[in-house]
Amino acid sequence: MLKKYLLAPGPTPIPPEILLAMSGPIIHHRSTDFTPILESARKGLKKLYQTKNDVLILCSTGTGGMVGAVNNFFSAGDKVLVINGGKFGERWTQICREYGLKVKEIEVEWGYAVKPEEVEKALKKDPAIKGVFIQATETSTGVNHDIKKVGEIVKKRANTLFVVDAISALVAHDIKTDAWGIDIMVGGSQKGLMLPPGLAFVSVSEKAWKKAKKASSPKFYFNFKKERVSQAKNQTNFTSAVTLIIGLDESLKMLQKEGLKNVFKRHKKLAAATRQAVKAIGLELFARESPSDSLTAIVAPKGLDGQEIYKTLKDKYGITAAGGQGRARGKIFRIAHLGYTGMFDIITAVAGIEMVLAGMGHPVDPGSGVAAVERFFLK
Amino acid sequence: MLKKYLLAPGPTPIPPEILLAMSGPIIHHRSTDFTPILESARKGLKKLYQTKNDVLILCSTGTGGMVGAVNNFFSAGDKVLVINGGKFGERWTQICREYGLKVKEIEVEWGYAVKPEEVEKALKKDPAIKGVFIQATETSTGVNHDIKKVGEIVKKRANTLFVVDAISALVAHDIKTDAWGIDIMVGGSQKGLMLPPGLAFVSVSEKAWKKAKKASSPKFYFNFKKERVSQAKNQTNFTSAVTLIIGLDESLKMLQKEGLKNVFKRHKKLAAATRQAVKAIGLELFARESPSDSLTAIVAPKGLDGQEIYKTLKDKYGITAAGGQGRARGKIFRIAHLGYTGMFDIITAVAGIEMVLAGMGHPVDPGSGVAAVERFFLK
Repeated sequence: MLKKYLLAPGPTPIPPEILLAMSGPIIHHRSTDFTPILESARKGLKKLYQTKNDVLILCSTGTGGMVGAVNNFFSAGDKVLVINGGKFGERWTQICREYGLKVKEIEVEWGYAVKPEEVEKALKKDPAIKGVFIQATETSTGVNHDIKKVGEIVKKRANTLFVVDAISALVAHDIKTDAWGIDIMVGGSQKGLMLPPGLAFVSVSEKAWKKAKKASSPKFYFNFKKERVSQAKNQTNFTSAVTLIIGLDESLKMLQKEGLKNVFKRHKKLAAATRQAVKAIGLELFARESPSDSLTAIVAPKGLDGQEIYKTLKDKYGITAAGGQGRARGKIFRIAHLGYTGMFDIITAVAGIEMVLAGMGHPVDPGSGVAAVERFFLK
Repeated sequence: MLKKYLLAPGPTPIPPEILLAMSGPIIHHRSTDFTPILESARKGLKKLYQTKNDVLILCSTGTGGMVGAVNNFFSAGDKVLVINGGKFGERWTQICREYGLKVKEIEVEWGYAVKPEEVEKALKKDPAIKGVFIQATETSTGVNHDIKKVGEIVKKRANTLFVVDAISALVAHDIKTDAWGIDIMVGGSQKGLMLPPGLAFVSVSEKAWKKAKKASSPKFYFNFKKERVSQAKNQTNFTSAVTLIIGLDESLKMLQKEGLKNVFKRHKKLAAATRQAVKAIGLELFARESPSDSLTAIVAPKGLDGQEIYKTLKDKYGITAAGGQGRARGKIFRIAHLGYTGMFDIITAVAGIEMVLAGMGHPVDPGSGVAAVERFFLK
């Protein structure tokens, strides 16, 4: 038996409490057996999002939420600005172009965060820009963009919506939807919320609802106006993903019990410990600035293939982490510290990395990274 | 304690074997832990669909599959024919119009099936029609359209695709995708497949893939060409709904163990027994012809409200059936015999109906319907 450990940036491990909650008999989505659960989950999501806005629940992966964030608020021909610093920045561009939007990109070198003043400059240059699209955590690089500062810039413009993909950032990071002026924010179930894949969440500000009135892109499965009406009655427009929403309610209750401040602090610590271990082993972070607290992207040592490190971790040691995506493939590997994660998961990951590197002939002092993690938590 | 019985046309009860399979720890969707499961589920779906075509697995409700069946194969301005005999026929029209298609409808009176010769006439009249959209089972009326006969008509036309919503019909009915010339057929998880809501299935013929090349409707979340490439490698284009697909594989194995012929026969018998009971109680079927084996729609006796019958079944007796939808609301109530269902579920439903009607002052002979069910199965 090779015991398995899941440390990938989604799906993340599911707590037994949530698995148990989702294992009950199915109930009907249009009945009073279910509506109080949806109501409770909706309230919990608003707290997590730190918003008074609607937070819609969709039956799709996070990408479905991203599509809905485009076609419900924009029309073919609209000019938008995409911050593209990785594979998921690219995805915003792809979705916007598929719907005929005119995309101007700020290309950010992979491993770096966008400079807020560049966003300001781009917006000043083109007053017609109707939306700014960004990631909170860019999962492919492990970098966080400064959502607060970019939000302050976009907020000043009455005709521009601020659209944030927080799929990987949510739960790990303290993101203040209302205070930071986020008009639309997308989340997903299989990340910090510790659920199986299958749900997306999208918050929508009043400013965005006003824009939605004029958006002419075709939409049916993700029709946010209709979802808003249904969800105000604690139903969904189409059949609800009953099981996952039961799990969502349980997850939100667990997070509320821990306290959101403590949840954010836990992720901050786990991430910091991971980064210190990476340095203690003599490795480099792929994030040159603003590393995410959701996951850590690590540069493969010279001469070693990042995919090989990922595969050896998985096949030899049972640790499922992640390799690199797109142009970072082969160059990096990634470890998540997101959701149902504690300090000994980090120790497992770090020990695994040390052993894999040693096995590949890379000079590494076994236990050096683990020692750094222990010392961090002993402080 | 009011013990609960789920007899709604979706979601349907989940067998303990499937709940158990879905309760294991989550696994990563791009890993060899998961790819053999997706491969096995894909093969099982092809058997269920009786097809050599691809059957794509999507993370959405059935409606998401319907949307994908429109925007992957048709373009704004295309002429299509929709058979509209209920709420889900209406949905085909709504989706097609949202994507700018020119819809000609054959309106079928609720409770009746389309006459295949009317489809033939409509197609002859307009050779430009590029698609015929229909339901196998129209869930809102409990009527089946004759997919085989309509298929024979559409098949003769090289430029017309035959698109079938089999969401409620699948598993209950012997539908031969390839033999009947079905180009695109949509299924869903929470019906005959005995799973929670959250998966849609869409089969695609070679004729349809050819048409897909020229379809210009915007699509991103439901991009079938990309799904086809990914799923051939036993992955999905975006994150897989891991848990539900594990359940799907288990469900398909259960159906294969029973044998598809036996599965269809079981549904046929359960439906026939239900209809005999309805008549024995002195009630009327809403389906004036071609009643579905997935569910039975029953006309509320004169002076009684169908919604009231549905509510009393639920609140007083713990039986969740369904009321009427759209223009049938108040006039009918519906009982499903779909998926994880046996003869004593029918007896429960029929006894419940007898007791509700007696309680509402309707002249009913308690046990008369149940006796009919028993006699049916004793034969």
